[in-house]
Amino acid sequence: MKQRVLRVGLVQQTCGDDPEENLRASIEGVREARAAGAELVLLPELHRTRYFCKVQDPACFDLAEPVPGPTTDALGAAAAELDVVIVGSLFERRARGLYHNTAVVLERDGTLAGIYRKSHIPQDPGYEEKFYFTPGDTGFRPVPTSVGRLGVLVCWDQWFPEAARLQALAGADLLLLPTAIGWDPADDEAERQRQLDAWVTVQRGHAVANILPLLACNRTGAEPDPAGGPDIPFWGSSFICGPQGEVLARAPAEEACVLTAELDFSRSERLGRIWPFFRDRRIDLYDGLTRRCQDPQPR
Amino acid sequence: MKQRVLRVGLVQQTCGDDPEENLRASIEGVREARAAGAELVLLPELHRTRYFCKVQDPACFDLAEPVPGPTTDALGAAAAELDVVIVGSLFERRARGLYHNTAVVLERDGTLAGIYRKSHIPQDPGYEEKFYFTPGDTGFRPVPTSVGRLGVLVCWDQWFPEAARLQALAGADLLLLPTAIGWDPADDEAERQRQLDAWVTVQRGHAVANILPLLACNRTGAEPDPAGGPDIPFWGSSFICGPQGEVLARAPAEEACVLTAELDFSRSERLGRIWPFFRDRRIDLYDGLTRRCQDPQPR
Repeated sequence: MKQRVLRVGLVQQTCGDDPEENLRASIEGVREARAAGAELVLLPELHRTRYFCKVQDPACFDLAEPVPGPTTDALGAAAAELDVVIVGSLFERRARGLYHNTAVVLERDGTLAGIYRKSHIPQDPGYEEKFYFTPGDTGFRPVPTSVGRLGVLVCWDQWFPEAARLQALAGADLLLLPTAIGWDPADDEAERQRQLDAWVTVQRGHAVANILPLLACNRTGAEPDPAGGPDIPFWGSSFICGPQGEVLARAPAEEACVLTAELDFSRSERLGRIWPFFRDRRIDLYDGLTRRCQDPQPR
Repeated sequence: MKQRVLRVGLVQQTCGDDPEENLRASIEGVREARAAGAELVLLPELHRTRYFCKVQDPACFDLAEPVPGPTTDALGAAAAELDVVIVGSLFERRARGLYHNTAVVLERDGTLAGIYRKSHIPQDPGYEEKFYFTPGDTGFRPVPTSVGRLGVLVCWDQWFPEAARLQALAGADLLLLPTAIGWDPADDEAERQRQLDAWVTVQRGHAVANILPLLACNRTGAEPDPAGGPDIPFWGSSFICGPQGEVLARAPAEEACVLTAELDFSRSERLGRIWPFFRDRRIDLYDGLTRRCQDPQPR
């Protein structure tokens, strides 16, 4: 079993009104992570813009762009300059009336290594994503890169064990989740804490169940509500954990920052030998997972 | 939305050489939990005996019993006497050469409400379960009872998000996991802590992903190794959490004790409205879950 160590990083950032300024901040963060030794850097969901999905506004479709396009060009140039793999996120215009929330992977030579289109799309007050994003059709296939097979998922996907499992079954070496999640200002402090803990816990759980390291990169900072309500405080708290769900690095809630941590992939290999979950999956009993529900009888 | 509150309990116990004494201790624990108001009480995995799977010994099949049988009779009598629902666990002899690790649910009138046969069977040094237990064929169907639909799983099942998800899809109101897990005396303190945290985290993750309360009941105490090695310390740490994975009660590692907590099922209902994961499952993308793996290409 050969040891394979990789330093990874993520950029927890604020996103203001100017997309160019936001992208500049993303790339500055990548540069900082690279200087700290990271060979793979994850950015937050939709890092080029404000979180525009707070309201349903047809004008916001102007923020979308093709893939490849300006953001992949800029991230590709940064990847090549810095000799680093970058996982970014953008609002993709695929065709007229057909838009996606898409993660993009730039290889260290600047080429586009692959994309992942967000599969699970939320829709609740303040997160009006079903208006903007067609559910992704890429499926859950890791993107092969020079630093490993990247199991990229996006935000709401993080609540679905199916998504993480399918990336693992397809050979992912680690899971990466760009995200944009914040508190409802109407909730009290105890509820906020429960939500944040649930978000951390369910993702650490994916790491444990799939014996894979995981990076979750969130934005931070309060963003104004175009509908005139209170600002939405994004909760930051980005983290990197190992294949037992052990937290290796964690960002604060309210501060832009760069995190890095060293992953040792030989640990996943060792753990998979002594806790061999994949050996024991009962695929003969799992048909129900592809159904909506089992329609329980009334009580 | 009507509020429905239920106090639940679990019995973290040691298990010695005398099965009758162990069963007496289980029932004493149920009595204590009932006195504290619990209407549903969970016992640890295989609570009537030592954890005999540390070695592969054909003589240990003598510990098995039919269902219904002596243990369900005793637990049923206790359930009826105390007016409480009990989830127990035993080594089931189903037919010659066909044995299971089976959870049994006793209704408050003493009748056998249903069973669940452990589906995922471990096999690693000190946990020689594939020698003893045929993988269960009950599937993941909650047991309907007077206190709700019980999503019972057993021990190694706890590492499989598929098992929890299928119980939820079939209408479980809560998840219950009798277990027997301990440390390898050869591991250092940091590794022990990572393993315990992983065990807690993956189960809290099931609670979050399925918006269900969860009870995990482990045995405690060091048990001798029949092969003459060091004692195996079972790590206790039983817990009860709510549908956001929030820990409501937690036992220490090394002490027999009874835990109770109050569950409010209207919280699951409310959470399922604002974080409606089940609405958004991409069953059109989940076929791979019923396959062994996706056979990734070589790097």
